[in-house]
Order: sequence, then C-alpha cells, then structure tokens
Amino acid sequence: MILVNGLPGEHIRVFDRGLTYGDGVFRTLLVRAGRSLCWSRHYDKLYADCAALGMMCPPEDILAVEMANLIAEAPDCVMKVIVTRGESQRGYAIPEHREPTRILMASPAPQYPANYLTDGVRLHLCSTRLAIQPLLAGVKHLNRLENVLARREWSDPEIAEGLMLDMDGNVIEGTMSNVFLRQGKTLHTPDLGRCGVAGVQRQRIMEMAGRLGMTVFRVENLPLARIYNADEVVLCNSVFGVWQVRELAGKSWQAGNLAARLRSLLDDECD
Amino acid sequence: MILVNGLPGEHIRVFDRGLTYGDGVFRTLLVRAGRSLCWSRHYDKLYADCAALGMMCPPEDILAVEMANLIAEAPDCVMKVIVTRGESQRGYAIPEHREPTRILMASPAPQYPANYLTDGVRLHLCSTRLAIQPLLAGVKHLNRLENVLARREWSDPEIAEGLMLDMDGNVIEGTMSNVFLRQGKTLHTPDLGRCGVAGVQRQRIMEMAGRLGMTVFRVENLPLARIYNADEVVLCNSVFGVWQVRELAGKSWQAGNLAARLRSLLDDECD
Repeated sequence: MILVNGLPGEHIRVFDRGLTYGDGVFRTLLVRAGRSLCWSRHYDKLYADCAALGMMCPPEDILAVEMANLIAEAPDCVMKVIVTRGESQRGYAIPEHREPTRILMASPAPQYPANYLTDGVRLHLCSTRLAIQPLLAGVKHLNRLENVLARREWSDPEIAEGLMLDMDGNVIEGTMSNVFLRQGKTLHTPDLGRCGVAGVQRQRIMEMAGRLGMTVFRVENLPLARIYNADEVVLCNSVFGVWQVRELAGKSWQAGNLAARLRSLLDDECD
Repeated sequence: MILVNGLPGEHIRVFDRGLTYGDGVFRTLLVRAGRSLCWSRHYDKLYADCAALGMMCPPEDILAVEMANLIAEAPDCVMKVIVTRGESQRGYAIPEHREPTRILMASPAPQYPANYLTDGVRLHLCSTRLAIQPLLAGVKHLNRLENVLARREWSDPEIAEGLMLDMDGNVIEGTMSNVFLRQGKTLHTPDLGRCGVAGVQRQRIMEMAGRLGMTVFRVENLPLARIYNADEVVLCNSVFGVWQVRELAGKSWQAGNLAARLRSLLDDECD
C-alpha cells in the first residue's frame, strides 16, 4: 500500500536526499472509514515545513488524489506522507532543477493496549536531550536521530512513551507526541521555538481549549518540576489522540478526565 | 556503480530507517589508482560511528570485498559508504531482528578549480549554526539538515566552502571539512565533543603535525576572532585533501604554505 511519486512501488533511489541527508519532511495521520482526518491541516503543516527547509511542496490536489487511491484499498489505516527534496549527486549543494519525491504509505493503525485510554499511560523520562536549533524547531523533518536514541532507552512494554527535555532541562515533548499540563483552569504547553515538533493536534487543542473553559499558555521554560506539580498531564498526537499520563519516573497522578475531555473536543469535525 | 547489500542496483526500500529517520552513518573516501585511501581508518570510524548510534556495523571484510568489486570498474573515484540501521515498520522503536543496510557508491572525483590548490580558497561565513548535541557530536550520521541549510546560503561559484559556528559562536568546521588554524608554531582545531563531524584527515593531521615541528591543540572555545587573528587557516577532508584559506567574509590572508606542507604529510602511506 505504497505510492512513490504516484506509482505503486516501495523503492526510492539511493541518490534521494531524503536518504543521504534526511533532507525532507513528513506527516502521519489517521484514516478512519475512508476519511483522512484533519487532512487540510496536515497539508498546511507539510507545506509550511517544506518552506522552512526551502523545499518545494507537492500540490495539495496531487497528494489528495494519490491518498484517495490508497484509501480506497485501506479505508482504516495510518497514512504517512514523506516529501523529500528529491535526488542529487554527492554534495550538500542543491541542484537547480529537481523534483521533490513524494511517498505515501498506508499501514495498519497500531493496536495500543485498551487500558491506555481507560487508565492512562506510564512515561519514561528520557536522558537523550533535544538540541536547540531554532532553524529546524517545530518542523517534522527527517532528521530524527534524537527521537531514535530516546526511544532506545526503554523496552518495557508497559511504558507507552518517553518524555524529552531540551539541553537546558525544559520539558519539550514526547518522542512521538506533544505534551500539555493542567494547573487549575490553565493548560500549559512548551513553546517549540527552539526545538521539538509542533503537531497538528497540539495546535487544535490550543485553539479549542477555551470551549472547556480553559486558557492555554505556551511556556518557554517548563522545568520538569512543573510537570511533577501539575494537576494533570496529557500527551497528544494524530494517531492515538490524547492519553492521560498516570506515571512519570516514580511520580503518579490520580486518574483525571482531561484526556477524555480533550478527546471529545478533537472528535469534532476536522478536514 | 552502486552496490546495495552487495548487489548491483540503485534502490532501497522506503521502510529503510536511513530514509525515514536518517538513522545511519556514512563515509566518503578517495580511490586513486585502484587504492581506497585510508580505508582502515575509515572503517574504524564507520564502526565507531555505528557504535555511537547503537547500530551493528557490517564486517570490514564484506565491505572491502564489495568495494574492490566497484574499484575494479572505477579505479579512480570517490567512494561513498552508507550504513543504515536497516528496515522497520513505522515508529521509532528498533525491532530486535534487523540487518543493517549497506550502500556503496562510486562517483567521479569532483573537479575543483586548479587554483584552489595554488592560490587557496574563499569561504562564506554561514549564519546557520550547529546545535549542541554531545550524543551525536563527531559522528558522521545521516541527519545533515544543518549542512544542507548552510550550503544553501551561497551560490557564488568562487566560494569553495562555508565556515560554521556552533550556537555559542565558536568556530567548529566547514560544511564538508574540518578546520585548523596556525598561530606561530601551534596548530589549533576545534574540539568536536559538542557538535561537528570528526574527520579522518583531521585525525591524521593531529597525529602527524609534530613532524612539521608543530604542536596541535584541540580547542573547546574558538571564537571567530581567533580565526581572523590566525597566521594561517586551512581546511581538510578526505576528497580534496587540504586547502589554504585566503579569504573569509572580507578578511584576507597572504599566501601561506601550511596547506602544502600538510598535503605532503598526508600523501604518506595510509591504509
């Protein structure tokens, strides 16, 4: 269930800069009953991320048509969209004439344990720190070694996700998710202007939290202690939605309903 | 002139973590008259870089045999060796059973202008800074977006290379080279414990400089002013050897002979 530049196949050439330099971006979204959830938002973010790297982004209609072809075969799946800067010979310089490479992959949705939604999840505190790089901050690019190294830190299947700090010790994100904490009627989420990936569900929560009577603040410095002292902590991404955090490195939280409330918001229409 | 896992071909599968996460390392070396220069050192560095990422490295003899097959067809070339962590399904977690992917590519050696060797080179001062990430520092991994962004900063063909600073403003390296400066009888080169790529020729120069009656110091903090005040500045890598720097962002140096002296050292046997 893969299209590479619109054609069925599962290969790219070794000259592709996505391989040689990680020179590209990607998106992961959920397809349910034939609908690609929040596609417009995902495309806008894909486009913005391409622009951040000075790359051309394939037109929305081309990706939409190709995605529809895959969805016809896989109406419930996880869709991954990779766009690279295309091919070049050896060397970092970017040739003038080149076409981005687009790869669409439909995979089965992951089967997380049912109690992640009912009881919340346990987190590992990663020792792998995120480097400060404002030029790449927020962008979901293909240079993901920090996430790979962080994910290698635990193998306990009871642990759902790892929490990552930046070099200064501020909480930034999960290895594959964004993080919010609630203090009273206020939600806080790390500012991602120096590192981290700014996800679509994070953006939606920031826009919609007012409907729960909550205010949201982006926080530049969110030391770990702020997490430990939070009333509730949740994670979000486009595949699993929202998870309540019940344990992080020895600290536990009572069962809360913030994740459930945010899930009900995110279940709203999103095209 | 490409072998992928030992077989002629120029494709990898889109599940390869080299593409999806930049999860791999590489080497670039010169092949002259059928000899792959400093291969032992390059292999040792490849192995060490794999270890830094917790990856298996293909055995030396396998790579050597495959390289010999390519060299039989291309006795004078640039050899690029890419090793990725291999394939996996979606997600950062590393499956237990996997084979690294090895890609060997022979390309024509680049034709740099002849006056780079005789007159020295001009450098652009890059505004793209290198992020501080000790876990990846020194490693020649496939997460090279910083280099790509830095190389995009100039298109003037008279400019041979770009000089990169770290986030704190210390000189670290060129986009594709390491840097040394001479002050009297002392060579200084940036410490690469926080960012940058530690190249094989840099290591050789550090070991051999004594034969020129020079001492070498690795410097943790090398502010740009130290470069401007240097008697001579040179760049090195495994393809072009050593270049004398004659201009950086408006500052010029008189023609010096440090690059030529270092080139004569590096011309020594190196297996």
